[in-house]
Amino acid sequence: MKKIKSVPLSIPADTANGTYEVPAAGPVTAIDRWLAARVIDVLGRPPITFVLWNGEELAGAGSPPVAYLRICDRKAFYKLLANPELQFGDLYSAGRIEIEGDLVRFLESAYAAMTHLSHVGRLKKPVSLLLNRPRTNTLAGSRSNIHHHYDISNDFYALWLDDEMQYTCAYFPAPDMTLEAAQIAKMDHVCRKLQLKPGDRVVEAGCGWGGLARHMARHYGARVQAYNISHQQIIYARERARREGLADRVEYIEDDYRNISGSYDVFVSVGMLEHVGCENYVELGKVIDRSLTRDGRGLIHSIGRNMRGRLNPWIEKRIFPGAYPPSLRQMLEIFEPCDFSVLDIENLRLHYAKTIEHWLARYEKHFERVSKKFDPSFARAWRLYLAGSIAAFTSSSLQLFQVTFTRAHNNDIPWNRMHLYRES
Amino acid sequence: MKKIKSVPLSIPADTANGTYEVPAAGPVTAIDRWLAARVIDVLGRPPITFVLWNGEELAGAGSPPVAYLRICDRKAFYKLLANPELQFGDLYSAGRIEIEGDLVRFLESAYAAMTHLSHVGRLKKPVSLLLNRPRTNTLAGSRSNIHHHYDISNDFYALWLDDEMQYTCAYFPAPDMTLEAAQIAKMDHVCRKLQLKPGDRVVEAGCGWGGLARHMARHYGARVQAYNISHQQIIYARERARREGLADRVEYIEDDYRNISGSYDVFVSVGMLEHVGCENYVELGKVIDRSLTRDGRGLIHSIGRNMRGRLNPWIEKRIFPGAYPPSLRQMLEIFEPCDFSVLDIENLRLHYAKTIEHWLARYEKHFERVSKKFDPSFARAWRLYLAGSIAAFTSSSLQLFQVTFTRAHNNDIPWNRMHLYRES
Repeated sequence: MKKIKSVPLSIPADTANGTYEVPAAGPVTAIDRWLAARVIDVLGRPPITFVLWNGEELAGAGSPPVAYLRICDRKAFYKLLANPELQFGDLYSAGRIEIEGDLVRFLESAYAAMTHLSHVGRLKKPVSLLLNRPRTNTLAGSRSNIHHHYDISNDFYALWLDDEMQYTCAYFPAPDMTLEAAQIAKMDHVCRKLQLKPGDRVVEAGCGWGGLARHMARHYGARVQAYNISHQQIIYARERARREGLADRVEYIEDDYRNISGSYDVFVSVGMLEHVGCENYVELGKVIDRSLTRDGRGLIHSIGRNMRGRLNPWIEKRIFPGAYPPSLRQMLEIFEPCDFSVLDIENLRLHYAKTIEHWLARYEKHFERVSKKFDPSFARAWRLYLAGSIAAFTSSSLQLFQVTFTRAHNNDIPWNRMHLYRES
Repeated sequence: MKKIKSVPLSIPADTANGTYEVPAAGPVTAIDRWLAARVIDVLGRPPITFVLWNGEELAGAGSPPVAYLRICDRKAFYKLLANPELQFGDLYSAGRIEIEGDLVRFLESAYAAMTHLSHVGRLKKPVSLLLNRPRTNTLAGSRSNIHHHYDISNDFYALWLDDEMQYTCAYFPAPDMTLEAAQIAKMDHVCRKLQLKPGDRVVEAGCGWGGLARHMARHYGARVQAYNISHQQIIYARERARREGLADRVEYIEDDYRNISGSYDVFVSVGMLEHVGCENYVELGKVIDRSLTRDGRGLIHSIGRNMRGRLNPWIEKRIFPGAYPPSLRQMLEIFEPCDFSVLDIENLRLHYAKTIEHWLARYEKHFERVSKKFDPSFARAWRLYLAGSIAAFTSSSLQLFQVTFTRAHNNDIPWNRMHLYRES
């Protein structure tokens, strides 16, 4: 038995003393072999070659395969069978599953196989939902969930985000532009959709490291109150606004969006809705309703889905506790009860895939550093999370919706959307 | 008692022999006067002056008022009180209510008053819903409902529509362009959203007089099968396609959208969804799902609402039987069950107001002709319907949504929306 150190924050320990037990590989029996072949069939023969713990290969379709999936020990194989959606990530993180070849393309094949599976076996979903229930987003629950992800350390995120620390989908007017330029283009796209102008009072729900709020103040003359419950992010955002001379126009408030008070011309939320939970959408609508002026306008930018369904349970458990990407219909529960008028919805799915490609490329450059600073399993978990997110967007398992809305009776709205596409 | 002739198609007769009884005006009692004053208060004192049947005036807010609402007889007053949403239209059509001043601005004030009312008295809605239930849209029901509206006569619509006979919201890249240019711009906007290209097989559900199908064939090289259950429209569309040499590329099929068969690259429906009924949205989704190719794409253009709610009962009963404008959430019931990916939603509310302003201006030029050919009440009913529709869009009681969608796994989608705004 080999022992490796346990992972901070994300990866669960199998034993009480906080270490992983990686069992010896063991022999491959006729039953193991038969089961592995059945799995390949049930998945619709994906273009992946399975490598068992004795080195034996079982090929799916495609030659050469997209990737080799190596299962390093017998126990890992049965764990994977029992709860693949959760265990794949844990076993990969622990080094008990290895992917040889292109990880993103492997995960895209896995998404395709899962789609195939959902067509042949609709029964498994309710069981999976029950096994992998998301954490709740009460005021205290949200605080703990957000702390888990966003308070890892600002330095960690700085390794692979752009210099404005935008941890949300960028917008690439041209696909080959830099991540830095695309994140600025995203902020301008949002500001244009909001018709932002000097003197506008803005409330931002979930401001990350505060980049959008600073951009709105610096380039559009807006006055922004930005809410966030991540302590580390707020500290960073305040310090940076002070340093950049924006502290008189941007105020970062360490509090929950449910405690927003005051009256604003603009409501904006980029990448927070994923953490709100459907059960709170009507309340979020009421928060917006009581905050916006008579002709107020707003924008919510969020990961979403075509059909309602859960986030991958491993991501939800290990990476993003309490996260839930809604279907567009579910998102509209925010707006409909309060008679908000939806003006524009744009789906930027492929832009998010490209954004995360940039993140992953930067992350890989620092992989050894992350492994050393944290732990190899943590580093592998985040690699899997980033690669899997790319695959989720290219496979259309996830969408990215920007919803622009206003008070019903506001007729001072853009005549059409041409103003979004003029050269600035 | 004065008798006027009853109205064909739309306006109900009060008596068995098909004539209206217009009672004598009668005296105004203290109770009548008290009630009228109460109504003005309950409506939030709109900027309208009420004129009773003896010439007595009761002013709301605003001087001068937006318009004078003259109630010509006592019986009309009490009918109006009993069921204002239905009776206002009938009494106006019959000449028992007169509006002196700008009809559209009067109706905008009425919408504002109704919004006020819905804030102070939420109880009245269920009663109104029960009193004024819409007709159903079974196969036979749809045929009868569509016949009621669209088979009035092609000549009637030709009086006030553009020369391509587009009876749906136009798109005005510049607000001051002509209706003709804006209807062509609308068709191009739709074709660009659909990335239409030569050889594409298109199915159109609800094709009106066939203008979009001809445009797609003529300017984009598409082959179109267009469904419609209005006999008069189909006859017109076929004849015109033949005359314009498009009959080999455009086929008009007199059948219900539920009977669409075959395989298509593109599904399009402009202004039919209003007649489908929410109870049939899931089935419509299935029709699209079985019709579209693997990378198929589609667009649905429909009147909608911010909050779910009924169409004005008078419009629904007298003008558009079976019609129901859905909320955006309700519209999404078409797409979500079939895993369609919504790419883009645009709200063109103010463009529809402008479109109908053009229609009403043309209609007014032919008002006397319509009165003679049909009946004064019919002519007044259609004036009210057009003016009321302008007011509904400027007041945000109605929206106009264009929803562009595609199969979930289609990655051959426009990178962004810039292509919609390039000069053609």
